[in-house]
Amino acid sequence: MSEQKVNQQWGGRFSESTDAFVQAFTASVQFDQRMYKEDIAGSKAHAEMLHRQNILSKEDFDLIIKGLNEVQAAIEAGTFEWSVALEDVHMNIESALTGKIGISGKRLHTGRSRNDQVATDIRLWLRNTLDLIDAELKRLQLGILDLAAREYDTIMPGFTHLQVAQPITFGHHLMAWFEMIKRDRSRFADCRARMNYSPLGAAALAGTTYPIDRHISAELLGFDAPTENSLDSVSDRDFAIEFASSASIMMMHLSRFSEELVLWSTPAFDFIDLPDRFCTGSSIMPQKKNPDVPELVRGKSGRVFGHLMGLLTLMKSQPLAYNKDNQEDKEPIFDIADTVLGSVRAFADMVPAIIAKKENMYLRTKLGFSTATDLADYLVRKGMPFRDAHEVVGKAVKLGVDTARDLSEMSLDELRGFSDLIDADVFECLTLEGSVNARNHFGGTAPNQVKAAIERAKAVI
Amino acid sequence: MSEQKVNQQWGGRFSESTDAFVQAFTASVQFDQRMYKEDIAGSKAHAEMLHRQNILSKEDFDLIIKGLNEVQAAIEAGTFEWSVALEDVHMNIESALTGKIGISGKRLHTGRSRNDQVATDIRLWLRNTLDLIDAELKRLQLGILDLAAREYDTIMPGFTHLQVAQPITFGHHLMAWFEMIKRDRSRFADCRARMNYSPLGAAALAGTTYPIDRHISAELLGFDAPTENSLDSVSDRDFAIEFASSASIMMMHLSRFSEELVLWSTPAFDFIDLPDRFCTGSSIMPQKKNPDVPELVRGKSGRVFGHLMGLLTLMKSQPLAYNKDNQEDKEPIFDIADTVLGSVRAFADMVPAIIAKKENMYLRTKLGFSTATDLADYLVRKGMPFRDAHEVVGKAVKLGVDTARDLSEMSLDELRGFSDLIDADVFECLTLEGSVNARNHFGGTAPNQVKAAIERAKAVI
Amino acid sequence: MSEQKVNQQWGGRFSESTDAFVQAFTASVQFDQRMYKEDIAGSKAHAEMLHRQNILSKEDFDLIIKGLNEVQAAIEAGTFEWSVALEDVHMNIESALTGKIGISGKRLHTGRSRNDQVATDIRLWLRNTLDLIDAELKRLQLGILDLAAREYDTIMPGFTHLQVAQPITFGHHLMAWFEMIKRDRSRFADCRARMNYSPLGAAALAGTTYPIDRHISAELLGFDAPTENSLDSVSDRDFAIEFASSASIMMMHLSRFSEELVLWSTPAFDFIDLPDRFCTGSSIMPQKKNPDVPELVRGKSGRVFGHLMGLLTLMKSQPLAYNKDNQEDKEPIFDIADTVLGSVRAFADMVPAIIAKKENMYLRTKLGFSTATDLADYLVRKGMPFRDAHEVVGKAVKLGVDTARDLSEMSLDELRGFSDLIDADVFECLTLEGSVNARNHFGGTAPNQVKAAIERAKAVI
Amino acid sequence: MSEQKVNQQWGGRFSESTDAFVQAFTASVQFDQRMYKEDIAGSKAHAEMLHRQNILSKEDFDLIIKGLNEVQAAIEAGTFEWSVALEDVHMNIESALTGKIGISGKRLHTGRSRNDQVATDIRLWLRNTLDLIDAELKRLQLGILDLAAREYDTIMPGFTHLQVAQPITFGHHLMAWFEMIKRDRSRFADCRARMNYSPLGAAALAGTTYPIDRHISAELLGFDAPTENSLDSVSDRDFAIEFASSASIMMMHLSRFSEELVLWSTPAFDFIDLPDRFCTGSSIMPQKKNPDVPELVRGKSGRVFGHLMGLLTLMKSQPLAYNKDNQEDKEPIFDIADTVLGSVRAFADMVPAIIAKKENMYLRTKLGFSTATDLADYLVRKGMPFRDAHEVVGKAVKLGVDTARDLSEMSLDELRGFSDLIDADVFECLTLEGSVNARNHFGGTAPNQVKAAIERAKAVI
Repeated sequence: MSEQKVNQQWGGRFSESTDAFVQAFTASVQFDQRMYKEDIAGSKAHAEMLHRQNILSKEDFDLIIKGLNEVQAAIEAGTFEWSVALEDVHMNIESALTGKIGISGKRLHTGRSRNDQVATDIRLWLRNTLDLIDAELKRLQLGILDLAAREYDTIMPGFTHLQVAQPITFGHHLMAWFEMIKRDRSRFADCRARMNYSPLGAAALAGTTYPIDRHISAELLGFDAPTENSLDSVSDRDFAIEFASSASIMMMHLSRFSEELVLWSTPAFDFIDLPDRFCTGSSIMPQKKNPDVPELVRGKSGRVFGHLMGLLTLMKSQPLAYNKDNQEDKEPIFDIADTVLGSVRAFADMVPAIIAKKENMYLRTKLGFSTATDLADYLVRKGMPFRDAHEVVGKAVKLGVDTARDLSEMSLDELRGFSDLIDADVFECLTLEGSVNARNHFGGTAPNQVKAAIERAKAVI
Repeated sequence: MSEQKVNQQWGGRFSESTDAFVQAFTASVQFDQRMYKEDIAGSKAHAEMLHRQNILSKEDFDLIIKGLNEVQAAIEAGTFEWSVALEDVHMNIESALTGKIGISGKRLHTGRSRNDQVATDIRLWLRNTLDLIDAELKRLQLGILDLAAREYDTIMPGFTHLQVAQPITFGHHLMAWFEMIKRDRSRFADCRARMNYSPLGAAALAGTTYPIDRHISAELLGFDAPTENSLDSVSDRDFAIEFASSASIMMMHLSRFSEELVLWSTPAFDFIDLPDRFCTGSSIMPQKKNPDVPELVRGKSGRVFGHLMGLLTLMKSQPLAYNKDNQEDKEPIFDIADTVLGSVRAFADMVPAIIAKKENMYLRTKLGFSTATDLADYLVRKGMPFRDAHEVVGKAVKLGVDTARDLSEMSLDELRGFSDLIDADVFECLTLEGSVNARNHFGGTAPNQVKAAIERAKAVI
Repeated sequence: MSEQKVNQQWGGRFSESTDAFVQAFTASVQFDQRMYKEDIAGSKAHAEMLHRQNILSKEDFDLIIKGLNEVQAAIEAGTFEWSVALEDVHMNIESALTGKIGISGKRLHTGRSRNDQVATDIRLWLRNTLDLIDAELKRLQLGILDLAAREYDTIMPGFTHLQVAQPITFGHHLMAWFEMIKRDRSRFADCRARMNYSPLGAAALAGTTYPIDRHISAELLGFDAPTENSLDSVSDRDFAIEFASSASIMMMHLSRFSEELVLWSTPAFDFIDLPDRFCTGSSIMPQKKNPDVPELVRGKSGRVFGHLMGLLTLMKSQPLAYNKDNQEDKEPIFDIADTVLGSVRAFADMVPAIIAKKENMYLRTKLGFSTATDLADYLVRKGMPFRDAHEVVGKAVKLGVDTARDLSEMSLDELRGFSDLIDADVFECLTLEGSVNARNHFGGTAPNQVKAAIERAKAVI
Repeated sequence: MSEQKVNQQWGGRFSESTDAFVQAFTASVQFDQRMYKEDIAGSKAHAEMLHRQNILSKEDFDLIIKGLNEVQAAIEAGTFEWSVALEDVHMNIESALTGKIGISGKRLHTGRSRNDQVATDIRLWLRNTLDLIDAELKRLQLGILDLAAREYDTIMPGFTHLQVAQPITFGHHLMAWFEMIKRDRSRFADCRARMNYSPLGAAALAGTTYPIDRHISAELLGFDAPTENSLDSVSDRDFAIEFASSASIMMMHLSRFSEELVLWSTPAFDFIDLPDRFCTGSSIMPQKKNPDVPELVRGKSGRVFGHLMGLLTLMKSQPLAYNKDNQEDKEPIFDIADTVLGSVRAFADMVPAIIAKKENMYLRTKLGFSTATDLADYLVRKGMPFRDAHEVVGKAVKLGVDTARDLSEMSLDELRGFSDLIDADVFECLTLEGSVNARNHFGGTAPNQVKAAIERAKAVI
């Protein structure tokens, strides 16, 4: 057995070196190098704690900090050579450190293991990402508010079953999106709070024999406290799944939003105009202007759902504590982060640039008997029980369908043929404006309610 | 067209009645009747609000309350006849009410729609279920604490990669499970808080023309406030997905727990004894005693993950507001609730009855060189850098593997052959007791740390 | 230990009876009784094989057949009492059999186990279900062909990105659906062929010590052959996952089909009319006619995807051979079968009843510059490279957008302003009819190609 | 509007160029460049067809082939500059081609669209990948056969519920894995057959106005035939989902296989030795030798399941024909291919190198009353009904559990105490060898049956 043949980090008991393909297959440095900053920050905090607890000398500590700074500079300058033979980001950095500062570097790994180290790195990385996501989501909310404020009284058809249901305002519709994003931010915030505990010091699984103080490193890294249990610390991947789950719900929201933008851009609807810079064309059809951004985001929802499922499967029925399976947590986390940040950024840029085609929206609202409920409510106010009013109006609608006319286009006599409770004042409640203004209560579509909702939203954002 | 042929609730504009198969295929009453209590509670609150707002007379209100009480009594007595022709729980109850009290019953549906009604019902149902789940999870935590307190210093092998890693205590291992359940309860609590808003008054999608006060019905039903936006109110199913997600993570935890119980019950491990009452036998092999409960719970994790995926798919790219697709939210919610409640109940019953086979645990810990890290730490304390100590011990382990002996079974001379830093005091750190006691810091496996963790747990439960 | 306390089927070695809740939690008879026919058929074949191999006497065999017939009659008459204490369909039937015929009944379970028994039952059940599904899918294909034949030359807009792309025929669009269903049938057929092997005789996991002949029972039950390996036979659930996967793809197809039916029913499109009997109304909006069937089927796709994911999770990392987890395979299989059969049946009924609104389709095709590609192709035929022609037509479209005119509404002079290759014959290629007729090759949208495709389809169905 | 500002491939109608972030966000060239070979092969076949049909001159055709060869050479030499501004692999190659050969290059895209082009590329890529996967799976089967042939009569415990069930042979267990891989190959083969149709000529969605012959290009590219319907051709992604589904089932198999390898490597089992070259160590615990390869493969199953879910979600409820969402199909396909190929390769290398620790296997089989069923069968042969024999043996096992003895360690008198049908010959059937040899029928565990199964397997492989 030559020295070169076996892995230098853990090869003592091994009698043959790792198979080259296996080495590449099991290595993680291709993707986990992305956490180099967090790995170095974690090592610094660990070293400081060791020093404060008199486990590491001042001299060793100073050298380690200096060496880590140099390593980070090299990485950021693009001059660092990542090695698959060194498996992961941790070994690569530690090996470079020891190359720079010698024996002191070999003292850094005292009282910790890659198991708690990687658990710390990924939490730090994800915490930072959650802050970036929150900022983008807030920017999207501001974009929605901007558009909603412009369109608070723009009348459009409200749909259920994609059939015209009742007149609503575009501002009100937009504020539904605002609410979804509000819950998304709240879920991400809960996820952040629940994960912000430091696993450092759990070591391989059971803690360490050195007199460490886990509260020190936790505090240095901005964690709320150390985790409670060492086995749980190295085996827990709840934060990854909770992140994937919150991201899935958020992407589901964007996919619904996207579906509507695609629908509203199709010529039959033609409710909105997406600026050319958010669209692309066709290589064969010269007339095409395609709403690529919402389509792509709609498609990307599947990707995030898939990662959620992958992560749940990953953890399913793993015995404690750490298993190699867990290495598979990082690529999905990174890809979710990229997907979410890219999708929200694209929406935050695009939404305030949406042009509402008010006339088209208005004309479409007149189709589909959108004020039929108003007529039923009118009859109720005249004393008819709602169920009976519903039946009466249903019959009037049937006449409308057969004769291709809206209720407002029927004569008073015709309408009275369905119920003699109907008087001339009925036509007021059959207008679109009358209809939306009448839904004037907390959460309703009346323009002044939308205005109030926008004010409340600005206050809580 | 005869009157009987078309649906009486909404048939006015229809010229043929629903196809019999379509009626059965689209009906929901087979499963949503499970929410009858919530539906009636919601109707009472709605009626009271209508009455307080002078939309419903005192007489009508009193009749409605009386009628609803009678309907509820009939349902609970098993004398209520559910009709598929009446589609859902709402129509069945309203129809029965009108049958009992006549025209007043027809006034109940004033200012609401089935869209906000079902959204209210399912939130009420789920809120109640979350409370039941929390109670069972707490009971499971108490069971874990009970067992952990008994076994706080019982030595067992700690595993990583299912290889013996370091000695730990069974109590410490159990407290890892406690932490997982703690996070589960916290996630369910967040879900409950986020969903506890009243959609009532959103009506079909846009609110209603009646002078309703949504705060009244929200308060009567124990909601924190009415929802902010009517479109969002009837189309939002975030709560279902968040519930499914929290349940999936929890079932993932139970599947890991189950995996360990199954492993520990296999003759090769033989760490625990599950009482006969939690096991079953084989129809062909007379000797079999199978750990059915953990196996089944492990299997049931897939069911819950599947529902999560189903719900995300369900909502993916649905345009606002309500679509018939949404009807598919209830069966998964009900099945998740049953699965979670059953699984946690079975575990809460079983865990405190687990018998630890301490001798087997102890003997197995001696295999696998579980104190090798302690020897490396010993060398570090004597001045050797950790990385070098790791290499030295690796070579000693190799000798152990080749000669089938534990490190503690080697002579001092043999050990000194690997490093002359080793002295006679080394044997102390190679004992299992010495090893666990040495991991004596917050979150570590030392028995007194486990004791302290149990005390903290009792305080926060 | 009283006789009543322990389970009579396997209780010999148990010292306490199963906990009542655990008994209910682990029982499967509530759902697996659905396979009673297959269980009895399997028992008959097993008994006949035992008899032919001289393991079972003629007298015992005759009594068993007689007894099983009586049990089946009782089940079908609704007089059979299913007992949760007897766990599953197998034990219930065997117990009833022994109750009827005494000691001969106790001989039936010779040389088999519930492990191979349930594997046989579920394959038989699923095989029959696959035949039912195939028949319904064929019926749906016939419905599509019926409609396609009626509408083979009906012009409608072809969409990409939901933007108008090129004129197509409705018949051509329908034949795309036909192709999807064709692949679905082919996948289900492959699934059937791959699963049609008999696990009977694998016994618990290793085979049996009796001189059985597995080919006999395989043949009696219509299997192609016995399975090759006994461990694999009792642990394999590939067929369930492959079924779930084929069903998921099929439901994905129906969800796309549904999306289109919903879109085409919305007033802005108004391409089709779904007969009233496939639609439902609203409890609050009297004018509503909702396309419930496609919406519900679209939603049900999630349910089936979820089961697929659940089944994959279920089997993930289970060691061989049988584990209790496997019991969780049946409910998803049953629910997928019900969902698929119901959805396809609803579509097979509905599709041939769809009314195409040809005028609306035609008018919408004229919007969106659907013949722009034809103009580019025209220029290519005149000698311009395609990429240059694309650029020229793009500019003409821009003028059209700015002046709200179709290309066919521009004057020859205007068009020549973009390229002097354009002559008076250009207007021919700008008509919708000219456009669809020109795509006249295998697989193209030209009406005569559609006709030919329909003929080929009829031949292979 | 400057020329530089808008996209040169489709910018004619656009008045502003694509937003830089949107351009990067929607581009696919970062990942789809992986299909450059297939893209070029497809272009050559398309050009040849155009030429044969007199749509492309001999001169243009020759230039195109020459140019494409140069582009391919540049790509393979690493000198090709991929541009995000050119969106995808198609535009990048076409643009480079035109740069090389001028106007002739602009004629290549005649009669096709990127929609059919990418559908062709991905099918060609996947078809080739399926062939690679099949070769690796076959190699794995050969490895299994190799090991099974060595261990055909090695006795080990057969498990159900991870409890010792009956003695089996290791060779028999291995052949269960062989069967799973056999089905996997069969599923991939079906997938290949079903996808091997050429979408080329479907153009954007409706076919093209040029007199193309789709059979020519189909044949040139090795497809069985052209696809039947142009809309289906560009919107169909069934092949991706079916591939993901077959890969998921295969990874599920490897995850089960992995679970067993991990179990068998844990000290408590110690059934096998994995060569050091397939294992890795720990950064902190010097004694560790971890079965990383099976753990990682087990974990990677989640990744593939996730992609399956992502792809199903992606396609759910997309209207026809092509939408931008579809771009999301490629990354999962590529990642599944890499994951599957890597995992199978690692297993194919590792499996034949597994060392069985026969003594440990044998000793463990003696625990757990593994011959209890044999005793029951013995009693049946003496005339007792199986159900009664089961009960008798159960009681004997209970005595064994209480006195810590195997059945074979009881005296004849003791055994006769349970049934006087028991004679001295009973001890023969209680040996492990007697037990496995007795399961001597097609598919059973008897060594000669295993040998026969291996022969059959060699014949069909």
